[in-house]
Amino acid sequence: MQFTVKAKLQRAMAIFSFLTPVFAAVICILIVMIVQRKRKTKGGGSERKDSIKEPRPWVDEDLQDNTDILTEAGKDDWQDEEEENLQHIPFTGMRYPEKEMVSRSKEFYELLNQRRSVRFISAEPVPREVINNIIRVAGTSPSGAHTEPWTFVVVEDPETKHRIREIIEEEEEINYCKRMGDKWVNDLKRLRTNWVKEYLDTAPFLILIFKQVYGLHSSNKKKTHYYNEISVSIACGILLAAIQNVGLVTVTTTPLNCGPRLRVLLERPVNEKLLMLLPIGYPSKDATVPDLQRKPLEDIMVVV
Amino acid sequence: MQFTVKAKLQRAMAIFSFLTPVFAAVICILIVMIVQRKRKTKGGGSERKDSIKEPRPWVDEDLQDNTDILTEAGKDDWQDEEEENLQHIPFTGMRYPEKEMVSRSKEFYELLNQRRSVRFISAEPVPREVINNIIRVAGTSPSGAHTEPWTFVVVEDPETKHRIREIIEEEEEINYCKRMGDKWVNDLKRLRTNWVKEYLDTAPFLILIFKQVYGLHSSNKKKTHYYNEISVSIACGILLAAIQNVGLVTVTTTPLNCGPRLRVLLERPVNEKLLMLLPIGYPSKDATVPDLQRKPLEDIMVVV
Repeated sequence: MQFTVKAKLQRAMAIFSFLTPVFAAVICILIVMIVQRKRKTKGGGSERKDSIKEPRPWVDEDLQDNTDILTEAGKDDWQDEEEENLQHIPFTGMRYPEKEMVSRSKEFYELLNQRRSVRFISAEPVPREVINNIIRVAGTSPSGAHTEPWTFVVVEDPETKHRIREIIEEEEEINYCKRMGDKWVNDLKRLRTNWVKEYLDTAPFLILIFKQVYGLHSSNKKKTHYYNEISVSIACGILLAAIQNVGLVTVTTTPLNCGPRLRVLLERPVNEKLLMLLPIGYPSKDATVPDLQRKPLEDIMVVV
Repeated sequence: MQFTVKAKLQRAMAIFSFLTPVFAAVICILIVMIVQRKRKTKGGGSERKDSIKEPRPWVDEDLQDNTDILTEAGKDDWQDEEEENLQHIPFTGMRYPEKEMVSRSKEFYELLNQRRSVRFISAEPVPREVINNIIRVAGTSPSGAHTEPWTFVVVEDPETKHRIREIIEEEEEINYCKRMGDKWVNDLKRLRTNWVKEYLDTAPFLILIFKQVYGLHSSNKKKTHYYNEISVSIACGILLAAIQNVGLVTVTTTPLNCGPRLRVLLERPVNEKLLMLLPIGYPSKDATVPDLQRKPLEDIMVVV
């Protein structure tokens, strides 16, 4: 009896031993799965988009802050908790008669409808006071929890402008090369106009707009700035209106992959990420723009 | 000899069998690791932020489009490839004398610096023509690859406004309850003011701004709109300037978790996601605003 039990035990152990390689195989599969998952998550969760087929080589880690994912225990909306504790004062706004409201709205539309993205900017100097004032205008923008998470870096130093141009053109060239492959070699001349950005040298001012993704407080504690990208983009919109209002031109650019290098060049702190670059000046005499149209009102507005 | 080999083999097998539970344990650990990883990645890759300590219950999947991660083979910058094929026409812009530029920039600052987020909006009617014009202004904004990825839904129907209010207050209440726990019960009255949004009923117009995260083309093929969130936020900035310019008030809101329900209510297509809601009207007679200050120029501008 005892012998039979021992034999059974031995047989069972033999079966287990036999299964050992199976377990090993399962472990290997699991390890592979983990590694794959790791690779996937590196992209920041954007894999859901079916349009993106290959690991993106250009993703600018420095630009990622997932501003869309903005909730945290204790945070809501744009509402500022500190704001709640502030004293409330009566609001007094300007009030225009109806007729004037209509004409003001029409005139503002006519002014802004003349705005175009202009890539040909003259070297002619622009008064610094105008630049100061348009940045003051941008600073009146609303922001999530009134964090005002923006830094406007105004570059007028020719050497710095040129260094910025070098960095941007270098990255652009890499982007084009990677992207175009053979086609690029064949069509070099046409493409060259895409990554050569002369306006970065000629424009009297470059405004680099940084978003502060978190605040640095006295205790060195980070305070996440929710909605920082939306807030700073709104401020850019208001800045564009201010630029158009004084008769200067710009082109809205988001230099790809250049954020970290430009941040270091301009000695901005780690909590700031480049969002946009606007070259500012008068248009060149021979400036041209593509003959594009805007959607009519009925294509952008729905009334319920 | 043969016996010894057999005995050795048996001993080895015994050792392997002995190790079987170890393998099983390792497998269990690996499974747990995978499950944890899965949970983590659900949040969309924002776990890098150390300030977020718990699984966020409010993440609005509908709001996530990772606009920051915008590169794809064949896409660059705001540049439009189709734009390149367009005819180029000479650009003619308005040019003001320097003195006038300075005064225009100053006056525009003074106008926009009076803008405040006002939560007390009168029911007094506002001319529709003014609303049309301010949306026309917003439509002049630049956008990535000139996609103009915005839809402005203007709600004037009182029932729809009330339904919007119900949805937003319901979600807000859930947010507050979840977030505040016991504290909420104790401090109900003060908090109530946070989620009761009377202006959604009283404002003569609500403008709900949707971003089109992709375009739907004839062949039913999706075309991703890169930079759609930044583009639409810029348009919102220009819209805010247009609202201020006619003497109306608004408050910039981003209704949390309400996007999908409001999209369905307003019968917007699946490629549109709610970005912002702006109630528009005259301020109430007793409107108040928190007594907050804006950063001075030297805190937001750096000159290089």
